[in-house]
Amino acid sequence: MSDTPENVAATNAEARNERHRERMVRKKTVMDERIANAQSERGLLLVNTGIGKGKSSSAFGMVARALGHGLKVGVVQFIKGRVSTGEQLFFKRFPEEVRYHVMGEGFTWETQDRQRDIETAGKAWEVAVELLNDPGIALVVLDELNIAFKHGYLDVDQILEDLRNRPLTQHVVVTGRGAPQALIEAADTVSDMSLVKHAFQSGIRAQKGIEF
Amino acid sequence: MSDTPENVAATNAEARNERHRERMVRKKTVMDERIANAQSERGLLLVNTGIGKGKSSSAFGMVARALGHGLKVGVVQFIKGRVSTGEQLFFKRFPEEVRYHVMGEGFTWETQDRQRDIETAGKAWEVAVELLNDPGIALVVLDELNIAFKHGYLDVDQILEDLRNRPLTQHVVVTGRGAPQALIEAADTVSDMSLVKHAFQSGIRAQKGIEF
Repeated sequence: MSDTPENVAATNAEARNERHRERMVRKKTVMDERIANAQSERGLLLVNTGIGKGKSSSAFGMVARALGHGLKVGVVQFIKGRVSTGEQLFFKRFPEEVRYHVMGEGFTWETQDRQRDIETAGKAWEVAVELLNDPGIALVVLDELNIAFKHGYLDVDQILEDLRNRPLTQHVVVTGRGAPQALIEAADTVSDMSLVKHAFQSGIRAQKGIEF
Repeated sequence: MSDTPENVAATNAEARNERHRERMVRKKTVMDERIANAQSERGLLLVNTGIGKGKSSSAFGMVARALGHGLKVGVVQFIKGRVSTGEQLFFKRFPEEVRYHVMGEGFTWETQDRQRDIETAGKAWEVAVELLNDPGIALVVLDELNIAFKHGYLDVDQILEDLRNRPLTQHVVVTGRGAPQALIEAADTVSDMSLVKHAFQSGIRAQKGIEF
């Protein structure tokens, strides 16, 4: 083949494709090995924390995933916002598949009453324990539970004990900023959502489908 | 009131409750002001990036939210896994409300063919542009689009132009690790999901409802 500019370009493109193929063959070997080594299955404790967006929405994405696989789900929302959330409106469409409990009375700066918040959190935990005792429920979401720890409304050690006593294959997702260290240590998977930037900072208000 | 231990304890608890109330009154003022200042509404460009868990599941949680508010949603998955995902199985139940397209052929290390991946990414983007031109769709999820940028399968500048031309109130969520800088600059809200720990590292395999 003569080295006209067209032929040189064609040879370079081929070489690039070939290098890509070789790299991907190596990567496939690594990924297949990793998957082969990760064979154990059991209920996971996942924690979504950090100050960024995505802690609760990620938990609700997992609810959708679980429902897609025909699994049953339980949800306890420890903090209720000012309005009904889209996730609540949506998942309440499936009463056979999702047990959905909104227990909080509002943000802590809305009630301004520590004693009432403690009682509300205690009642919410009782509902959570019912879900955690039900082997028919594959995934339990404890939304904004970390807020209750942060204000000292619930005792972390007691809650960890209840979590340890759940059915062996049940998954649990805990959300909320400021996850306590003991919970992070007990968890299998922990994601920290950090805020790179947020539209709220530029004067954009919370919008349907995005923030609630 | 005499200062028996019981009375002292009661007084301390009351004082604590009162301090809590005062702090929450101040916090409410701050939060109400912030909400009052954030009044503008328009379609947001959100980016979920980072190496931690929660980028895609957070986007699918927003899908659930949007559906709860009666909005219509479009989804394009740029990378298809080995198996059908729970989110795909679930959201395909709502063909009137969700336009769901799985376009990728598999992970890049599965196809090992750069030219074929580029063609697949191009076709996926054509489908995305249809959704981005439809003012009836309130939220568009471009799942794992960042992977296509990372491998140079799609041109960021062209895609940003298509995103700028979408309907004014349409929200877009882009997911995938390694979001390019130009996309981060163009975005309204960016979350970086960092990995604190992951069950996969301890030999637990990917499980239904959690990872897929």
